[in-house]
Amino acid sequence: MTDNATGIGDFIFGTLATNADRMESVIGGWRGLSAPAFEMRDGTAQIAVTVGPETPIDDVTLYFTTDGSDPTSGAATISERAFKEYPPVWDTLLWGYLRRFEATIPASMLPTQGMLRYRVAGVTLSGEIVHSAGGQRFSHSLSSYPIPEWVKNGVIYHVFVDRFSTDGGKPFADHSNLAGFYGGTIRGVTERLDYLSELGASILWLSPIFPSPSHHGYDVLNYMDVEPRLGTKADLKALVEAAHARGIRILLDFVPSHLSNEHPFFKSAQTDPNSPYRDYFTFTHWPDEYTAFFGVKSLPSINSENSDARAYLIDSAVYWMRDFGVDGFRLDYAYAPSHDFWADFYAAIKAVNPEAFTVGEIVETPELLRSYEGRMTGALDFHFLQAIRKTFVYDTMSIEQFDDWLHRHTAYFNGHDFVLPTFLDNHDMNRILWAAQGDKRRLKLAALLQFTLPATPTIYYGTEIGLSQQRDIRQNGLGILEESRLPMTWDAIDADLLAYYKRLIAIRHEIAAALAGSRQTLIVDGQNGRYVYGYYAEGGQADGELAVLVLLNHSAQENIITLNVPGNWQDVFTDETHADNQTVSIPLAPFSGTVLKRC
Amino acid sequence: MTDNATGIGDFIFGTLATNADRMESVIGGWRGLSAPAFEMRDGTAQIAVTVGPETPIDDVTLYFTTDGSDPTSGAATISERAFKEYPPVWDTLLWGYLRRFEATIPASMLPTQGMLRYRVAGVTLSGEIVHSAGGQRFSHSLSSYPIPEWVKNGVIYHVFVDRFSTDGGKPFADHSNLAGFYGGTIRGVTERLDYLSELGASILWLSPIFPSPSHHGYDVLNYMDVEPRLGTKADLKALVEAAHARGIRILLDFVPSHLSNEHPFFKSAQTDPNSPYRDYFTFTHWPDEYTAFFGVKSLPSINSENSDARAYLIDSAVYWMRDFGVDGFRLDYAYAPSHDFWADFYAAIKAVNPEAFTVGEIVETPELLRSYEGRMTGALDFHFLQAIRKTFVYDTMSIEQFDDWLHRHTAYFNGHDFVLPTFLDNHDMNRILWAAQGDKRRLKLAALLQFTLPATPTIYYGTEIGLSQQRDIRQNGLGILEESRLPMTWDAIDADLLAYYKRLIAIRHEIAAALAGSRQTLIVDGQNGRYVYGYYAEGGQADGELAVLVLLNHSAQENIITLNVPGNWQDVFTDETHADNQTVSIPLAPFSGTVLKRC
Repeated sequence: MTDNATGIGDFIFGTLATNADRMESVIGGWRGLSAPAFEMRDGTAQIAVTVGPETPIDDVTLYFTTDGSDPTSGAATISERAFKEYPPVWDTLLWGYLRRFEATIPASMLPTQGMLRYRVAGVTLSGEIVHSAGGQRFSHSLSSYPIPEWVKNGVIYHVFVDRFSTDGGKPFADHSNLAGFYGGTIRGVTERLDYLSELGASILWLSPIFPSPSHHGYDVLNYMDVEPRLGTKADLKALVEAAHARGIRILLDFVPSHLSNEHPFFKSAQTDPNSPYRDYFTFTHWPDEYTAFFGVKSLPSINSENSDARAYLIDSAVYWMRDFGVDGFRLDYAYAPSHDFWADFYAAIKAVNPEAFTVGEIVETPELLRSYEGRMTGALDFHFLQAIRKTFVYDTMSIEQFDDWLHRHTAYFNGHDFVLPTFLDNHDMNRILWAAQGDKRRLKLAALLQFTLPATPTIYYGTEIGLSQQRDIRQNGLGILEESRLPMTWDAIDADLLAYYKRLIAIRHEIAAALAGSRQTLIVDGQNGRYVYGYYAEGGQADGELAVLVLLNHSAQENIITLNVPGNWQDVFTDETHADNQTVSIPLAPFSGTVLKRC
Repeated sequence: MTDNATGIGDFIFGTLATNADRMESVIGGWRGLSAPAFEMRDGTAQIAVTVGPETPIDDVTLYFTTDGSDPTSGAATISERAFKEYPPVWDTLLWGYLRRFEATIPASMLPTQGMLRYRVAGVTLSGEIVHSAGGQRFSHSLSSYPIPEWVKNGVIYHVFVDRFSTDGGKPFADHSNLAGFYGGTIRGVTERLDYLSELGASILWLSPIFPSPSHHGYDVLNYMDVEPRLGTKADLKALVEAAHARGIRILLDFVPSHLSNEHPFFKSAQTDPNSPYRDYFTFTHWPDEYTAFFGVKSLPSINSENSDARAYLIDSAVYWMRDFGVDGFRLDYAYAPSHDFWADFYAAIKAVNPEAFTVGEIVETPELLRSYEGRMTGALDFHFLQAIRKTFVYDTMSIEQFDDWLHRHTAYFNGHDFVLPTFLDNHDMNRILWAAQGDKRRLKLAALLQFTLPATPTIYYGTEIGLSQQRDIRQNGLGILEESRLPMTWDAIDADLLAYYKRLIAIRHEIAAALAGSRQTLIVDGQNGRYVYGYYAEGGQADGELAVLVLLNHSAQENIITLNVPGNWQDVFTDETHADNQTVSIPLAPFSGTVLKRC
């Protein structure tokens, strides 16, 4: 229930940080006809909507096509389905009843490929048409997109290109403006591939490499070119090839929500009343008032409901995948474009590369995250981030609460084809080492937990070598995000920490089969900081034998953890073996942990 | 979404009036293990609980008995059932996942009579026991209690005894203190039975008749006696007999939540540390600090979890029913005693009289109301009160919203054996005529709607003769509830209004068969104030023929309502018939309505 709007902690879910924000969001979401929830069940498509207490709906209808055409009343191929109404549900906060409707499209009406497109509309008691989610079209690919194995088994390394590595290891530009250019390049990244290979990273996520006036690149000038400061298209191609040669995949950071107000399309739209790009944007009062990212005028929002604008974005993504061989995209502010956009986007890049991977930045509720299933491969797990930092950095969540939360979180996404890569920090928040006030033990403990859970882990460049900050990102109450984007200190590597990270990744591969099984909590004792969980041997039978044990001591005291686990066990950090007897006793130093493997 | 904490309107759901109150209530409700929801389904008992985000539960167990004994671990007959866990549900307002559990007791373990008693407990991850709803026991009668026909077909008349009628029609005491005694008596009520018979009332609800220092009687001194000011036990017996002779049933107003601090039990408990009555109350710091009704020290709460206190209350109710023949009870502040208390209370009075009727005053959510199914016959419908007054008195809810609300409300309680008597006003709020600023047409229109809906209607004494107030109950910001309890003006009866009420009740009986069928909205047009609904002929087939039409004009203009309803129709107010043609046109004066019957 606590949020961290003030005081120690993070401000992760900024728009949903307070009770009032959440109430507003929930109440707003129940106005009119809700956005449809989609689920494939036994080959049928289930589409559910709710109607809030203030909307007197008489009837709800689903309009759909399966040939890719738009499901408007004029379409030749449109089909209709009536919704079945379920008993209403009372909601105290809305002070009213929610009506619940579900429509089923039978398997016989669904081809096994192509795109299901649909709209939901209702008629009010006074005869007005009410559109679900403001008349938005929704789409869902009928092809199935299983999660690629390389994603499940991967380790993501997140590079901020301007700050990672220069050409030839030259020193970074030295200046006091953290928002300036430090000189990192694509070739610089290529030169560090051996480093990344040795570390064990298998997926390299590059911050935006498109032309842009900023150090971060999230204000794009051209989606089909490379920023000259960072290098050339040839440099990118060389990086992809060299990475692939080492078994490393490449993710570009794609920005479909908004672009730079210096982008030629926006300049044309703003200066020429007949510009073909005018509808690429949403002018509330042309030429000066328009929808923009969080209202920032230099970042006009792209209207990706416009079919040309949508095609431009999708063609750009396809271009990098098809012509340069990139393996996928991290999707910046993926909350902004519609679900319909993401269905088209995913289908287009999956058509080029069935093994493609997209991962959204969606800092919203798990309920919303799950709604992107089939429309992207997954989303970065900001909920895990919040929970692990509360527990292992700020001590504002008990280990019992963390473990319980993790079980619920896992169960909530169970059965859904949606990956949730974990991370401990990124470019928009205090680095975990800074947040932990430099206590490396807490970082190591959190990382041990991160790497011994099934979800694909992500490392933010530098976290593995002890890179920290000069100041808090919230100094003087302002968000100086650049504090968490200091250049990589190649000449000041914390060797112990780096070795630890390498070991963690190696261990992750050693226990991969067990991680695919089911996790069982064995000890959770927040008062003494003892936390132990295990995994069953491959196949994941909960009644089988435990194959792996993870032991954590989240306390300032040494802890001797005694487990009643008959068999022979090997400590994967120390290689020490524990004899065959009924119990194993493992001493753990303050804020440390280890992993035991059955041997 | 609007509440009426300020400005025009009512303050009905006082403790749930604002968003903040509701948020607090909901969040509070999810702490720990929730109270169990009970449902009989195909002969099995389904018991469901939820666990809020902040409670790390490992396991949940149901403990139950069916022989009436307490389901504690020592009981010889105790049984256990494991709960099945369902997938968690995300809740944005709680910012966490709710876990949902359900246990099933198979029919084979349930006798067809007697009492199922149960407790739910969980074990946290740290090994602590967590009790559902603070360790409360819950009970549910295994006998079924169908709703008595006389309740379904009844019309309730609600009398405030001190203010209704004196002996022999003497004038009421005349004084300026509205909280004083006006001289109404039980014999006075008996003398007015002809009036009530002629009106058509069939259920007479008397305000508390037990000894009490106040004019309202809700602070009882002795639950087994009659307040001498109001009369004698013989007077009550005579009233019951005379009422029964006219087919009128009697409800007493029973107050199980609290009593007067002058009640001998409380005085003993407060003065004698060894008093046998000490545990009838909840002393937080004996003798001066104790739980009381909304903290009012003169109204100590009764601890009806104490078995002797519970027996005292139940024995008192049984006494009036068995020895005096009263037919049931209106249960004052029924929210206070536990569900377990109400299960015992209902079973005890049903054992005396299987036709007994109890109706609770529970000013809470529909979800909570429904949880009393099987524990009382029903509850007064404060939600209907709020909706009808918003729509027909304050114009703050459109007719479309009202109709939609009514459909949802009906659907929510559909299939549940739980009656929801309707009312337009009572002794704790502004009379509807006062709220409508004296506009009798609005009262008549609201009453027409009330009497042409299936739920048992209630009339607050005097509303049918135009009794109003001198001042608003919220004058000077204070709640002067007595403003709505002025004495009945037998010498100043609004004959037109009284005739209208008589006709309404007569019509209700004429169309009773149709009311048991399904209601269909035909016109709902708030802009023009037109609202028409109908009922299908007996059997309630929605594809059958409409048998009854109710037409309302909620506007300041005359409305001609034209309906496409072939057949012959009779206006039940005017007896005018409408010829057999395709459409019927009915002119309705401003703020008026009528009822048509197929003939």
